Amino acid sequence: MSVGPVNINYEVLLSSFRSNVGITSDEVNEAFREIISGLRKMANHNKGSIILLPGSGTTAMEGLTNILKKGNRVLLATNGVFGDRWEEILNKYPIEIKTIRSEPGDNVSEEEILSNLESKKFDAIILTHVETSTGVKSKIEVLRKAKDLGVITVLDSVSGFGGEELDIEKNKIDYVVTASQKALGAPPGIGIAFISQESLSIVERGEGVNGYFIDFKKWLPVMSKLEEGKGSYFATPPVHVILALAKAIELCLKEGMSRRIERHQTVAKAIRSGLESLGLKIVAKRGFEANTVTAVYLEGVSPIDFLNIAKQEGVEFASSVHPKIANRSFRIGHMGWVTKNFAILALSVIERTLRRLGKDIEMGRGVRSAQEVFI
Amino acid sequence: MSVGPVNINYEVLLSSFRSNVGITSDEVNEAFREIISGLRKMANHNKGSIILLPGSGTTAMEGLTNILKKGNRVLLATNGVFGDRWEEILNKYPIEIKTIRSEPGDNVSEEEILSNLESKKFDAIILTHVETSTGVKSKIEVLRKAKDLGVITVLDSVSGFGGEELDIEKNKIDYVVTASQKALGAPPGIGIAFISQESLSIVERGEGVNGYFIDFKKWLPVMSKLEEGKGSYFATPPVHVILALAKAIELCLKEGMSRRIERHQTVAKAIRSGLESLGLKIVAKRGFEANTVTAVYLEGVSPIDFLNIAKQEGVEFASSVHPKIANRSFRIGHMGWVTKNFAILALSVIERTLRRLGKDIEMGRGVRSAQEVFI
Amino acid sequence: MSVGPVNINYEVLLSSFRSNVGITSDEVNEAFREIISGLRKMANHNKGSIILLPGSGTTAMEGLTNILKKGNRVLLATNGVFGDRWEEILNKYPIEIKTIRSEPGDNVSEEEILSNLESKKFDAIILTHVETSTGVKSKIEVLRKAKDLGVITVLDSVSGFGGEELDIEKNKIDYVVTASQKALGAPPGIGIAFISQESLSIVERGEGVNGYFIDFKKWLPVMSKLEEGKGSYFATPPVHVILALAKAIELCLKEGMSRRIERHQTVAKAIRSGLESLGLKIVAKRGFEANTVTAVYLEGVSPIDFLNIAKQEGVEFASSVHPKIANRSFRIGHMGWVTKNFAILALSVIERTLRRLGKDIEMGRGVRSAQEVFI
Amino acid sequence: MSVGPVNINYEVLLSSFRSNVGITSDEVNEAFREIISGLRKMANHNKGSIILLPGSGTTAMEGLTNILKKGNRVLLATNGVFGDRWEEILNKYPIEIKTIRSEPGDNVSEEEILSNLESKKFDAIILTHVETSTGVKSKIEVLRKAKDLGVITVLDSVSGFGGEELDIEKNKIDYVVTASQKALGAPPGIGIAFISQESLSIVERGEGVNGYFIDFKKWLPVMSKLEEGKGSYFATPPVHVILALAKAIELCLKEGMSRRIERHQTVAKAIRSGLESLGLKIVAKRGFEANTVTAVYLEGVSPIDFLNIAKQEGVEFASSVHPKIANRSFRIGHMGWVTKNFAILALSVIERTLRRLGKDIEMGRGVRSAQEVFI
Repeated sequence: MSVGPVNINYEVLLSSFRSNVGITSDEVNEAFREIISGLRKMANHNKGSIILLPGSGTTAMEGLTNILKKGNRVLLATNGVFGDRWEEILNKYPIEIKTIRSEPGDNVSEEEILSNLESKKFDAIILTHVETSTGVKSKIEVLRKAKDLGVITVLDSVSGFGGEELDIEKNKIDYVVTASQKALGAPPGIGIAFISQESLSIVERGEGVNGYFIDFKKWLPVMSKLEEGKGSYFATPPVHVILALAKAIELCLKEGMSRRIERHQTVAKAIRSGLESLGLKIVAKRGFEANTVTAVYLEGVSPIDFLNIAKQEGVEFASSVHPKIANRSFRIGHMGWVTKNFAILALSVIERTLRRLGKDIEMGRGVRSAQEVFI
Repeated sequence: MSVGPVNINYEVLLSSFRSNVGITSDEVNEAFREIISGLRKMANHNKGSIILLPGSGTTAMEGLTNILKKGNRVLLATNGVFGDRWEEILNKYPIEIKTIRSEPGDNVSEEEILSNLESKKFDAIILTHVETSTGVKSKIEVLRKAKDLGVITVLDSVSGFGGEELDIEKNKIDYVVTASQKALGAPPGIGIAFISQESLSIVERGEGVNGYFIDFKKWLPVMSKLEEGKGSYFATPPVHVILALAKAIELCLKEGMSRRIERHQTVAKAIRSGLESLGLKIVAKRGFEANTVTAVYLEGVSPIDFLNIAKQEGVEFASSVHPKIANRSFRIGHMGWVTKNFAILALSVIERTLRRLGKDIEMGRGVRSAQEVFI
Repeated sequence: MSVGPVNINYEVLLSSFRSNVGITSDEVNEAFREIISGLRKMANHNKGSIILLPGSGTTAMEGLTNILKKGNRVLLATNGVFGDRWEEILNKYPIEIKTIRSEPGDNVSEEEILSNLESKKFDAIILTHVETSTGVKSKIEVLRKAKDLGVITVLDSVSGFGGEELDIEKNKIDYVVTASQKALGAPPGIGIAFISQESLSIVERGEGVNGYFIDFKKWLPVMSKLEEGKGSYFATPPVHVILALAKAIELCLKEGMSRRIERHQTVAKAIRSGLESLGLKIVAKRGFEANTVTAVYLEGVSPIDFLNIAKQEGVEFASSVHPKIANRSFRIGHMGWVTKNFAILALSVIERTLRRLGKDIEMGRGVRSAQEVFI
Repeated sequence: MSVGPVNINYEVLLSSFRSNVGITSDEVNEAFREIISGLRKMANHNKGSIILLPGSGTTAMEGLTNILKKGNRVLLATNGVFGDRWEEILNKYPIEIKTIRSEPGDNVSEEEILSNLESKKFDAIILTHVETSTGVKSKIEVLRKAKDLGVITVLDSVSGFGGEELDIEKNKIDYVVTASQKALGAPPGIGIAFISQESLSIVERGEGVNGYFIDFKKWLPVMSKLEEGKGSYFATPPVHVILALAKAIELCLKEGMSRRIERHQTVAKAIRSGLESLGLKIVAKRGFEANTVTAVYLEGVSPIDFLNIAKQEGVEFASSVHPKIANRSFRIGHMGWVTKNFAILALSVIERTLRRLGKDIEMGRGVRSAQEVFI
């Protein structure tokens, strides 16, 4: 139950099991076509482009430089470690950044964002959909308002898309980043960027500050051809991941996005309910909890010991990475193909682990709360 | 028989078949350790660092910007399309480039390279080990001489390493690029960079012109830990590819590099001998032929028709990508896990394909020549 | 959580994933050798023979006819449906049978068995180790006493071996039957027979009443060669199952039989404890409960509805097959690679299922009891 | 290139890759339904029954005892080792057999069969479609004539069905045996019996001399339910093989039986043509050659040496098993998913092997002949 790469559905894994796949074979062409067409439907992104980048979510984050021009000023609202990464990325480029931060578990407020933007000093606003280090979800509607103020709107939905609602057109988002290995439930290897029609003109004019591998001017014609089902390539894609991602997206569409998000929501709610009934405190403040990842405070127990014993009991949880809370919290990833029984398993292992670490836990208490959510 | 991704050995593919692998799980940590330690032996690269980059060979090519400083002048010797790519990459950065080119099938001469370098105007020299678009192999000893002239030496061995001899220390190469999906015989998804001890100081001082994802300052501590078998990460690696690559490298070490290279050589020789006995002309000039890929001229036959019919006969060859010869040639990839029977298969399909296209080919003639090479 | 084929361990499954395996290839020969040598250790069966029969456990049951002569009288002690199968089998042959039966959940008593045997009217006694239809375990020590009375001793351990203690030599058993797909944790396809040294003479003299496919006179020389690691065959074995079984047995030996049995015991105990705390009644009487399968009474709930809803909740349990209780019970298979979390999962699904069927179940109660067994 | 289990198609193998399949799960039920319905079409067997027996082809051969009554007289026409097996099987039962034999490579003549049957002394006639030990194909039309004489007609098509034409209704065959691992191209583990409507009455009245596991009275109701897509079982089937077989049959239907047989024919013809041009002699007499297996004489070369060196060259051929020719012949299996390139590969390896063994072979000669068959 790491925070990604997630447990991969069997059918998805089997799809990638080919010894011999050319990068422009019919099989791969068809997979690309299905991925792009599926992503459009899942995110309601009908006009702009979608780029599948060999690499990781970070590759797609850096791809933002394609629509930022030299000297652009960016407002970054960050709730934790992965939000902060944007600062590190843009610092490598001739871009000015102003960062507004929240405390762990909290969310930068809409007011703070909008009042900054209203100062007219910014060309772009960056928001993290789900901050993986704290399990905090942002209210993405602020981007729509930001867009009305004339700025480029950017959403990092690496840990959100597939498990949280995301309507790109409705929310007027210019640039959305996600990755194959999170709530989409495929193996890692592909960063995904959704770019609005409007922003494409910056790419086409080559005004971005980007490097070569992530140069969308190179990728756009490739992606257009692939969307038409024709073979094309710029840098070799990880074809096995592409085949798996196509199957994952087929399963997403089959499940339906609303059912998929509801499933994530129910599992997340049950996990939180179970944790709280065991006396554990959720990092994310009430109302800010993500469907896909939950960070949890530990009291009187070393996270390292906790993770080790939980592993012996059968589940690998994720360590905390937020410097302010790393020594007193851990994380549960619950995205992709999670089910009710996934929540039960997690909670039963947490119960046994805490008891083995000397905590006076009522056995079965956490599971009971989860069960009550389900019934 | 594409030029990469290659046919993947069964054991290699099975190694990657895991539904649930954490990026810092013991299994992945051990795989990273084995890959790095194996690569050191295979390339005789004991002192500097090795970086495994999520992405492709191009990602690792762009990584060169970590050891190039603003204003550096680079001499690029290119034999074709993939050599030319360096120019496009470096043009994205404040680097000056002088390019010296050969005709398709030819090799930029050692004299030309050295006489340019002796002018003292260059900080670095870039050479392509095997030019995938023409099947031409460079003589990499020139890099040793270049090093003695004080320049940074760079080798693109994406289509070479694993199938051609490569001794990094002996040839004093500062930066070598390769990728998982070529002669190493694993799935695509990982670009690999070997950096000399000397060049690391540029990275450590942060003097490179690089972007964020390929920032080696971020990757070096991660790689150090992974080489010690400890978990660490910067951007999510494609773990399934890592597991497969570890197995591929295990098999490379088991086979032994000299035997592996000899196998590639024998298969390549048999293929060339067969092609020539059928009256076909090899693009690479005599003495410049690579072990890993062969480009072949077609006369009186459309490459598109040729490739389509060959596919019906059971083998997918690669189309030509070199603009000067694309309309009158095709390519055969023969790297990774190729065997004698691979050559036989290729030639028998070429015979039937040419006959079906109306060429007056003596059936069995190409196979006979290959058989004679083997006996 | 069916009663077999069980969930198969990943490594076991991967072992069988070969497209091209000759029946006398080195790979298959080695697998056979390891299976036979492993089974000897696991069951403490050093002197007699082991025969691996393509087919199922029933094939190996019918193999008993190799050591029964025309007119032999057999005493059959049966606790349910699978015990009764022996009667059906032997009725096809010129063998006389006397059957002594227990009620569902009960065990034929040692006294009844021994007093029958002391009448001197029998040549053989057949006992079922674990009766899969009721989850009842026999006390196999009675076979040792039976042997001292001079009869051929037969144990059906199809649902026992691998999860229950079994020492063939110590208990002086002449013929033991098991199968690949139960507590050994491999795919179905192989019936396994252990034959004592003493009984082999009947086979060698060809005195049995057996048919052709199960003719051990044909199989014995094949098995001898395979045990020596040499290729041999009589009827084509299901080679993929053989490869998987070899890996399963490797993992059994690695775990150690005592640890393996203890694991089965703990999981079984937790399941029973959870069920009872939910007010459910175990079919097997106290003291007769098997480690590998539990039959459970349902009150006021249709087994068909129960199984359907449990499946929706994520677990497939097994229907009951014992005619006397089929309409008011179901079964849980818990053998092979089961873990603590397997018990938790089963119980949490049973809780939700019963609640959905209108039973007034305290949610979490069953899981709590299981958790308490584990701590 | 063994004579079975054959190389298994990738898709077929992947279909069987499930860790958790209940024997009456929807997935398995559907697989059974598809297999039975597919086999009916492929063999034109619409009225009688089809039984899928866990085990091997031999299990299905012994199943014939279900329609033979005590004292029945059987005429057996055998062309080699696998024909002879019928004698061994029936000798275990109260059946009288008369065997008529041909020399290796030859076929028992229709005249001999019919003149025997006209004596009115026989209740059944058994014929082998393809004798795997010699590569000889029978003319099965004789069975139609035999049927008109009133006898039960039996065909062993273990090595024929899937690669040779077989119309059960047209040829009036009462009992046909085949197996999963031969020309059907699935893994071994399932013996298949086709029984005519007429013969079923013998089964229903329980008049056969059969044992228990192969008792069709037990299997018929199971198979009826499975054909309707309902779960049912008697002895545990090898579910993984069932899933694979369903996919193999899906692919057979997709290819079409006439195309499938033509493919086998072309490959077989090319192999024979190549062998003969190398001076090798085919065991099967002209006109009797099978599409699925070819036995070949070796002169001046030890078969053991030949097989070992061929294996080094990359292909495992099968040893000869016919006692009269075993020391001077070998066999090539070419059934299931064979292609043109399969023939080329086999011949090129044979050329190199013979040369290495000191034979004065013109390299490429065999491949040329095969190529000429293809063009």
